[in-house]
Amino acid sequence: MTLSSHSGATTQAVSLFQGAKGCKGLELQRSHEKLSRYRLFVQWETLENHTVDFQEWRKLVGHCFAAPPEVEHNIQALKGF
Amino acid sequence: MTLSSHSGATTQAVSLFQGAKGCKGLELQRSHEKLSRYRLFVQWETLENHTVDFQEWRKLVGHCFAAPPEVEHNIQALKGF
Repeated sequence: MTLSSHSGATTQAVSLFQGAKGCKGLELQRSHEKLSRYRLFVQWETLENHTVDFQEWRKLVGHCFAAPPEVEHNIQALKGF
Repeated sequence: MTLSSHSGATTQAVSLFQGAKGCKGLELQRSHEKLSRYRLFVQWETLENHTVDFQEWRKLVGHCFAAPPEVEHNIQALKGF
């Protein structure tokens, strides 16, 4: 997976996320230490907005993944500043 | 590691981060799937602000870690919205 292929596909997908139910934001980050590692941070109103309502993402970027992505849902425990 | 012990220590550490050179923000997130996994997101002006200028964090929360934390530096590749 290259930066250009992934960020290009992500750019195409931005409008898809923007129109998705409960989607509040999207950011793609690249690891400084492991250049082939990308993390896509998507903010949702509810967990179900991602796991149930949203099904289109994988169709658009599935070909860009070297391996099936590890998906994890995080909950904000503390906002420092 | 428990949420209370970690978030408590993180709360104590907030002022430390706020005063650190180049520190722009701090957020603690907890994994929904793996409850013992926490991710601390700290934003820095430069990589060196963390790796060189900042040395105090581990002294404050070292006792809260079940294992040595995995530290990774990420660079924003794309900001969708």
